Amino acid sequence: MTPEINGDRLLARLEALATIGRNRSGELTRLALSDEDTRARSQVMQWLEEAGARVWIDRIGNIHGASSGENAQPAVCTGSHIDTVINAGALDGSYGVLAGIELLQTLHEQGLKPATSIEVIVFSNEEGVRFTPDLLGSRVMVKDVSLSEALAVESRTGEQFGSELKRSGSTGDVDPWQHLPGSFVELHIEQGPLLEATNNQIGIVEGVQGHSWWQVEVQGQANHAGTTPMHLRRDAGQAAMRLAQNLSEHASRQSVPAVATVGTLSLVPGAINVVPGQARFTVDFRDASADVLRQADIRLHQEARQLEDDGFRVDLRSISRAEPVFFSADIVAAISNAANARTLRTLRMISGASHDAQMISRICPTAMIFVPSVGGISHHPAEATNAADLIMGAQILADVVWALAN
Amino acid sequence: MTPEINGDRLLARLEALATIGRNRSGELTRLALSDEDTRARSQVMQWLEEAGARVWIDRIGNIHGASSGENAQPAVCTGSHIDTVINAGALDGSYGVLAGIELLQTLHEQGLKPATSIEVIVFSNEEGVRFTPDLLGSRVMVKDVSLSEALAVESRTGEQFGSELKRSGSTGDVDPWQHLPGSFVELHIEQGPLLEATNNQIGIVEGVQGHSWWQVEVQGQANHAGTTPMHLRRDAGQAAMRLAQNLSEHASRQSVPAVATVGTLSLVPGAINVVPGQARFTVDFRDASADVLRQADIRLHQEARQLEDDGFRVDLRSISRAEPVFFSADIVAAISNAANARTLRTLRMISGASHDAQMISRICPTAMIFVPSVGGISHHPAEATNAADLIMGAQILADVVWALAN
Repeated sequence: MTPEINGDRLLARLEALATIGRNRSGELTRLALSDEDTRARSQVMQWLEEAGARVWIDRIGNIHGASSGENAQPAVCTGSHIDTVINAGALDGSYGVLAGIELLQTLHEQGLKPATSIEVIVFSNEEGVRFTPDLLGSRVMVKDVSLSEALAVESRTGEQFGSELKRSGSTGDVDPWQHLPGSFVELHIEQGPLLEATNNQIGIVEGVQGHSWWQVEVQGQANHAGTTPMHLRRDAGQAAMRLAQNLSEHASRQSVPAVATVGTLSLVPGAINVVPGQARFTVDFRDASADVLRQADIRLHQEARQLEDDGFRVDLRSISRAEPVFFSADIVAAISNAANARTLRTLRMISGASHDAQMISRICPTAMIFVPSVGGISHHPAEATNAADLIMGAQILADVVWALAN
Repeated sequence: MTPEINGDRLLARLEALATIGRNRSGELTRLALSDEDTRARSQVMQWLEEAGARVWIDRIGNIHGASSGENAQPAVCTGSHIDTVINAGALDGSYGVLAGIELLQTLHEQGLKPATSIEVIVFSNEEGVRFTPDLLGSRVMVKDVSLSEALAVESRTGEQFGSELKRSGSTGDVDPWQHLPGSFVELHIEQGPLLEATNNQIGIVEGVQGHSWWQVEVQGQANHAGTTPMHLRRDAGQAAMRLAQNLSEHASRQSVPAVATVGTLSLVPGAINVVPGQARFTVDFRDASADVLRQADIRLHQEARQLEDDGFRVDLRSISRAEPVFFSADIVAAISNAANARTLRTLRMISGASHDAQMISRICPTAMIFVPSVGGISHHPAEATNAADLIMGAQILADVVWALAN
């Protein structure tokens, strides 16, 4: 028998948490370890205690809240984060954390004890806005980044992560890897438009896209825009735009890669009446297949060579690369079973965004559950998910975690 | 009998003038009415006096130097400017001024007196870098801008043009329009690649291109670059690039207009991992025909409507417009005759850049003479013209002015 969560309480707590860090203009910002984030952490720890959980903080600031189980197996874990970007929405991260707490509270109220312990983890500095890299709490847990390295990370304004942990009273003396999860399920809003566009209720997330990021610089010849005939120009701006458009069209038509984005572009000298002598832009390739990602990289090199044949100099610099992540087929099956049992419309999908789950998947069976994002919007005040979808997602999380723990 | 100028003296004076305003790194900058410009103005007035000219400054700071003629007809005028852009070349403006002085000096030395007075005008603030608008001295002369308005113009750092005139001792009490030219010939470097590319020595300039400048803003939808599939994007950056490329290709293939340039482009929010929601760029159309310029404007509106049909919002704002200028057929014929008499290779052409001559053409028969620019480069330290071309251009100016004055 699966515990039925209290949907109204979940929605009320989402609203309550969203008031912490909201300024007079209505903008919500809770950068990692800021005063706002610290207040939100206190609130979340209080709710964990109300839910009867044993609560502790580890040395990188991750908050843990665990119900006791009947056996001594590693816990079935869920969780997400409560730090935000600047001028954020109310759901990103918070939703997964509060849904986990809702499950613990329900078990507590109904006197239900799982065979294996169930644990909620609130990862520190997921967004990476104030402190780089992102996913810092989960990275340290899986030793992608060492604890000492992480504590020494500095913000742009010079504050150290370790000092800020102390200042905010967020530090504990338990090593982050002391109690590793036995399995991990993260519930999150999709942050994309696919579930809504296909009229589905639950996304069964089988993995996370890899990415390949490039900085491209095209060198031509700056010239007077009035005196230089078209056929005698080497316009770096037009060359860069041609390259950018070819990459985008190749992704649209051939899906190589799944998505390609040119998010920044600047022209030098950048004057209305000067033919650009130089253009700089970034390329963001993403795909669930490492092979397709490599094909996209090769395509970029071919396009660059084409421009060089036309008399331009092109410099390519790889600025970030991550291989795709594949989640556990067992956890994916557990999510699918739970959704089918409630006859929900589901879509198997790949996450386009990064999540702590991709780090945790290195050390235990892991998968994710998505709920629809209205208009696909996130990292924005307009971020929203219908109440019914929020409640149903949290129930599916409860069903899956309960099933894994028993 | 035409006076033969002293080419070596001209070249030596070009070099001497270029040392005024050159800093320790070798960069030449003489912004209008700066201390450097003031020193150059003193030097030029001294040379005019050595050439036996009557020298005066008018109330907008234009320097005039006139030889006396036998009749009382309005003077045959030549001239250009000696203010520069930042990190300029040695020839832009200075060449036309020193070639005019060289003619006066030659007449003085050889005791030649023209029927009609010959006058060299050194126009103030041609470049418009420190004080906007450009062509200020000639604009006031032809009443395109009023004297009081021009004196009140402020630089970005708050200095007033009128105060700077006084500070630099560059002000006179003669109205700029008191002695209007009877005709005007301006000698200038081409600042473009056409004469060199076609292996010609003299450009016979029949007019100045008109221009139409636009600010374009494309509004789409910002989205997460990882989670938004290609077919669900409204990428303002890609839309803007498509529009910019279509305009450039239409100019290249159909010559509508002669040249089209996208010199600035920015993407908003401008992050590597965000699909641009907004793109802003400028368009610079130029053509010698007002009708073709209008066709280019219409084309821009059609392209914008096409994007709107595809779901984007496009705002167009006209930020500057100038109709094409047509020079005097008589002066053009005089230049052609002079060049033919010396069996030079000539090209009839349209100026792509702005010059004081386009203002003066409103009040008297006017045309221009161009000499080749090596590599088409100007407004840059690499600005250069072969010595033989410089001397030949100045001789043709002397021939034309002498012919018009007799």
